[in-house]
Amino acid sequence: MSDPGAANLQVTLKSRPQGWVRESDFALVETPLPAIAGGEVLLRTLYLSLDPYMRGRMDEVKSYAASVNLGEVMVGGTVSEVVDSRHPQFKSGDLVVSAAGWQRYSKAGGDKLMRVPAGLPPSVFLGPAGMPGVTAWTGLFDIGQPQPGETVVVSAASGAVGSVVGQLAKEKGCRVVGIAGGPEKCAYVVDTLGFDACVDYKRDGWVQELKSATPDGVDVDFENVGGEVLDNVLKRTNAHARIALCGLIAGYNAAEPMGLHNVRALLVNRIRLQGFIVSDDLSRWPEIIRELAGRVAAGSLKYRETVAIGLENAPRAFIGLLKGENFGKQLVKVA
Amino acid sequence: MSDPGAANLQVTLKSRPQGWVRESDFALVETPLPAIAGGEVLLRTLYLSLDPYMRGRMDEVKSYAASVNLGEVMVGGTVSEVVDSRHPQFKSGDLVVSAAGWQRYSKAGGDKLMRVPAGLPPSVFLGPAGMPGVTAWTGLFDIGQPQPGETVVVSAASGAVGSVVGQLAKEKGCRVVGIAGGPEKCAYVVDTLGFDACVDYKRDGWVQELKSATPDGVDVDFENVGGEVLDNVLKRTNAHARIALCGLIAGYNAAEPMGLHNVRALLVNRIRLQGFIVSDDLSRWPEIIRELAGRVAAGSLKYRETVAIGLENAPRAFIGLLKGENFGKQLVKVA
Repeated sequence: MSDPGAANLQVTLKSRPQGWVRESDFALVETPLPAIAGGEVLLRTLYLSLDPYMRGRMDEVKSYAASVNLGEVMVGGTVSEVVDSRHPQFKSGDLVVSAAGWQRYSKAGGDKLMRVPAGLPPSVFLGPAGMPGVTAWTGLFDIGQPQPGETVVVSAASGAVGSVVGQLAKEKGCRVVGIAGGPEKCAYVVDTLGFDACVDYKRDGWVQELKSATPDGVDVDFENVGGEVLDNVLKRTNAHARIALCGLIAGYNAAEPMGLHNVRALLVNRIRLQGFIVSDDLSRWPEIIRELAGRVAAGSLKYRETVAIGLENAPRAFIGLLKGENFGKQLVKVA
Repeated sequence: MSDPGAANLQVTLKSRPQGWVRESDFALVETPLPAIAGGEVLLRTLYLSLDPYMRGRMDEVKSYAASVNLGEVMVGGTVSEVVDSRHPQFKSGDLVVSAAGWQRYSKAGGDKLMRVPAGLPPSVFLGPAGMPGVTAWTGLFDIGQPQPGETVVVSAASGAVGSVVGQLAKEKGCRVVGIAGGPEKCAYVVDTLGFDACVDYKRDGWVQELKSATPDGVDVDFENVGGEVLDNVLKRTNAHARIALCGLIAGYNAAEPMGLHNVRALLVNRIRLQGFIVSDDLSRWPEIIRELAGRVAAGSLKYRETVAIGLENAPRAFIGLLKGENFGKQLVKVA
């Protein structure tokens, strides 16, 4: 049972960023606890997921989802605990996956909530067996359609999405090459995640290293970064390559949109490039989450987390994520 | 029967262009007539087709087909007349579609030749019922997959490919908007070809005109041009739009590759972009050519030709094609 006198803590959008996001673009505000109606539950946030897509929500431009309005709570996926329930199927103490956003308490209709399965740390359902994992699965298999023996390249390879993409592609029998920033991330990608190679795009000569790492060219690119990274992967593409366009994090903070120079490769190599948003088809999530959670439980799908402590540190952690300072899935431990 | 003392006339590649193609990149040479072996025919070129893809063949960079080597005859589709035959199914006077290239005489294996059907001017099989028409058909239907009521945009709309794309899309029940260079071409596209609108990209304010002409956004883009044209069409795309990437003529003569700025739209609108080359699947050509020829014969598929007279004028006509100086299908009348 929640304390009716307790206050909620929220992170709201204070101003729309120009170029790089700053901490001053957010505000930390106290508000009353939300009251729940019949069929609803009151939730306390345990973990907040920080993801690159949130950057797009801070802009006013047309995007695939509505912008966050100034003064509104920032959106985000959460693992939350039920602290009060007016829904017959939930009771206090139940753990659920929700979209509570950047706040300590929230309310939700019980019919929309997914119960956190037992047996795994709940944060797994914000990472390898959550939205990032489903993103990896659908982009790789539905768009990339990798065949055994083909070469798959993944940018942001140590991240929440990229790490799952590469491990699934290895399981499929592909040669898998990651692109990541820094020697520590690259070592993790190869030694722990089992990729065949990882190219550190912060090193001079990385383009040559990418070439050496893809001796048979590139058949599938799972693109999280864009910009110069995508341009150089395009130079390595084979005829009939597929590009799953998942993110363009290189350009999210550029004042000018980040362009693509090597458009010609798309034509010459008859490439199929498909932008996608994992939330477009929610019907397959339960099945895919079961597949992914099974692999995590079996130890065949590895993951890593960076956890910021306290909601008030969410803005700084988010800025770090956009700069690639996190290592693996970026979470905020709220409660 | 050919005159055994006659000489062949050929246009060969003399130098690889830097930026714009110049007439001096070609050489006009006389060579002996080719001798034919059993199963072969000797062909006299009636019409040579000039097409933008030939620009790519002049470069040494990796492309979807082998480069033309220096000193070799330029490649190209032709309508040719059999003047000597050692193939049982062909006799002198037969008309065939061939790939004889930029020359007066050539030889070919008879098994590879398509006979020109009777009843239509033979040049039709280099235009609306030839390679450009098949390009339009496969790009529009296989990749664009337009649905009745959707909006289709076609660049280079008065050209050999674009003109067929738009007429097929109208037949399908789409709103069709062309992009072309100059008021004369735009008037033709609307008044003769029956497009709903045509935007003259050489006019100031054309971007605003494109916006006005696509009040419901763009669902299918058949892209022949690239560069600034593609960037501005991308601004009008709806969610789940499709782009058939057929050509990038805007960049074919640029010293630097022409970039794409609005990559973000590909992601945000979950666009499927597919580069394609019509010669990748030859199996469906006969069926599609029959469909297109039937429409030309019925008068429902209109076309226009620009014909240069004499093989020696092919280089100048080709340069004009790259600059958009032609109007409709560019041909060279050789014999």
